[in-house]
Amino acid sequence: MRDVYLDNTSATPIDPRVHESMVPYCREWFGNPVSFGDRGSRASDAIEEARTQVGSLINAPANEIVFTSCGTESNNMAIKGLAVARRGRGRHVIISAIEHFSILHPARTLEKFGFEVTYIPVNEYGMVDPEQVKRNLRSDTTLVSIMHANVEVGTIEPLKEIAAYVKESSAVFHTDAIATAGTIPVDVQDLGIDCLTLAASQFYGPTGAGALWLRRGIQIIPLMEGGVQESDKRSGTHNVPGIAGLGKAAELAKQEMQSRNEKIIGLRDRLREGLSKKIEHINMTGHPTNRLPGNVSLCVNFIEGEAMLAFLENVGIAAASGSACTSKMLKSSHVLNAMGYPPEVAQGSLLFTIGVENTVEDIDYVIEAFPPIVERLRQISPLYDKYLKSQKGGS
Amino acid sequence: MRDVYLDNTSATPIDPRVHESMVPYCREWFGNPVSFGDRGSRASDAIEEARTQVGSLINAPANEIVFTSCGTESNNMAIKGLAVARRGRGRHVIISAIEHFSILHPARTLEKFGFEVTYIPVNEYGMVDPEQVKRNLRSDTTLVSIMHANVEVGTIEPLKEIAAYVKESSAVFHTDAIATAGTIPVDVQDLGIDCLTLAASQFYGPTGAGALWLRRGIQIIPLMEGGVQESDKRSGTHNVPGIAGLGKAAELAKQEMQSRNEKIIGLRDRLREGLSKKIEHINMTGHPTNRLPGNVSLCVNFIEGEAMLAFLENVGIAAASGSACTSKMLKSSHVLNAMGYPPEVAQGSLLFTIGVENTVEDIDYVIEAFPPIVERLRQISPLYDKYLKSQKGGS
Repeated sequence: MRDVYLDNTSATPIDPRVHESMVPYCREWFGNPVSFGDRGSRASDAIEEARTQVGSLINAPANEIVFTSCGTESNNMAIKGLAVARRGRGRHVIISAIEHFSILHPARTLEKFGFEVTYIPVNEYGMVDPEQVKRNLRSDTTLVSIMHANVEVGTIEPLKEIAAYVKESSAVFHTDAIATAGTIPVDVQDLGIDCLTLAASQFYGPTGAGALWLRRGIQIIPLMEGGVQESDKRSGTHNVPGIAGLGKAAELAKQEMQSRNEKIIGLRDRLREGLSKKIEHINMTGHPTNRLPGNVSLCVNFIEGEAMLAFLENVGIAAASGSACTSKMLKSSHVLNAMGYPPEVAQGSLLFTIGVENTVEDIDYVIEAFPPIVERLRQISPLYDKYLKSQKGGS
Repeated sequence: MRDVYLDNTSATPIDPRVHESMVPYCREWFGNPVSFGDRGSRASDAIEEARTQVGSLINAPANEIVFTSCGTESNNMAIKGLAVARRGRGRHVIISAIEHFSILHPARTLEKFGFEVTYIPVNEYGMVDPEQVKRNLRSDTTLVSIMHANVEVGTIEPLKEIAAYVKESSAVFHTDAIATAGTIPVDVQDLGIDCLTLAASQFYGPTGAGALWLRRGIQIIPLMEGGVQESDKRSGTHNVPGIAGLGKAAELAKQEMQSRNEKIIGLRDRLREGLSKKIEHINMTGHPTNRLPGNVSLCVNFIEGEAMLAFLENVGIAAASGSACTSKMLKSSHVLNAMGYPPEVAQGSLLFTIGVENTVEDIDYVIEAFPPIVERLRQISPLYDKYLKSQKGGS
């Protein structure tokens, strides 16, 4: 049986060159970067090289990069750390309705502690309207956080336009770029933003390594306090192999982004078209063109995402339903809800995410294997049965 | 030149068997544990096996273990998460004066947000008096955090006695066991505590992997909110290789602790005695007997720790001065200050930490190499010159 991995949003396979860059720090150069001596220096050099590589990926000065343990940590640090540090100026925060839970939940925690949060709605493509952000900016708004792209539906947000409005206010602008940094070009200066989250596991780097970029001069309260690491912004012994891997992954992403995406976009469009043609009652979700290169998100009417996942797994295909973090929760996606999909459609959501290791054969295998699965599941679907009866009744 | 690593408190070399246990998750089984399918299950199985191994190390149920990115994260989560979750019951917190900065700094942050913190002093050996804790417990005390052992001076605290007093109050008891878990026996049930911090990098596991044990039923506010990981107590994509390594390191530590310590204690006593005999005006710091197996902490009068470190490095010996996290800060240690050492003595602090890879030859090399370094540094020390003159004047 073919093994087709189309769940690159949950975790990308680690590039062998990235793995290679981590190996020396796994055993030989195990030292703590804050220690004196050769072992400390070696580890410290690895951290600083990674800082330069990550800075270069997003066009930020290396010394404005703070290493964290994952994207979730970066998002929590940004939302809670910026809002609380700036609480003297105001207690109003703006986020979008389709943020990841690592933004939404910290925002709800802020609400419990006396902050007011405005949730900007999205249109049917999952797109935030910059004018809506503009209209909600107030004199006491201190933080706006809108994601760069939504991984569940693939839509890329109009960040530059939003940032231009935020710049006219006294708020700072954070973006969760977990879905985009290392995947499509991200230039923090050109975007005009102040703070950005990224994670290595989204671009062929290891899990356990993320970063927060914070423009110099912006105050933040650290989530993790203690030692002297990361200019006092994030204490804790560095995960040296993880950070070295993040740096190498960033370097490779910058060099190879264009060629990777040419291939991946071709595969994406092949899969979208193939499935659209062969499966009835299927909705491609998210923006039709302004979307992530490897993202094929869809809703199949009358059946459940979880059932499709299980049947796909049986034929060797790994995919996702909803976001990676909610896939085991069996809940209807808050993203699809915000886009106006009724629960009975949203429950049939499925996400194929294509990576550099995928081939035309992988895609054609899915186009062959998936339609019979849909057929089979519909045969036992009460919703589909009801639909067929309603059609007969109507004819 | 011989390469003698006696800085095991900054980071221990990773056990080859631990490294071996991580390799499959570095590339082949890169999946996200929350994903469906084989890759997700493999990663999830690795996490759950590690949970059992870590629980077993400290005699806690596996499902009470929360994985974090490091000891600093665990400590921040405990101090801020427990105090804030329990703020309705009271706002008084007790810690010792010699806690690590990852306890002290969060405690100071609590003070800024309306909490009151009592800092329990220590005696000349760095020992907390349980009676002092008892006397400071109040009806509004909700959290007590006293470290299990202090790595800077090696002293093991009378945790069980302290915990017995805390149990009579309505407070919960957290301990920072970074220096002890995996090194000496730690049984959370026998100690009678509620919450414990540990870190893999202290017992031949990787950096980037720590844990917080929290007794079932105790409320905590997570530091990192978002997805569904770690029973909602710590969100964020798991560092799977790191956690697998932590588990394996815990398993090996449990099996081999006794034999490791028999060897390490022999080396420690050899080093303590050798240096005491050969160097004048040297103070062995911390408790003389109730101390960590591999810890040789001392103050050399009239010269600075940093200078000694540099000269030791020149002859291939890696050591530390102060804690790992402060060694680059060139500050006098708050631990030695709390123990009553005047700054001019505390500045000459030096820490050798012995690990399983060290040999008798390593120790004898230090006993030979270190005294001439002290001699040489004293020749250029104004403090020593002043001392000699005062001696002459007195004779």
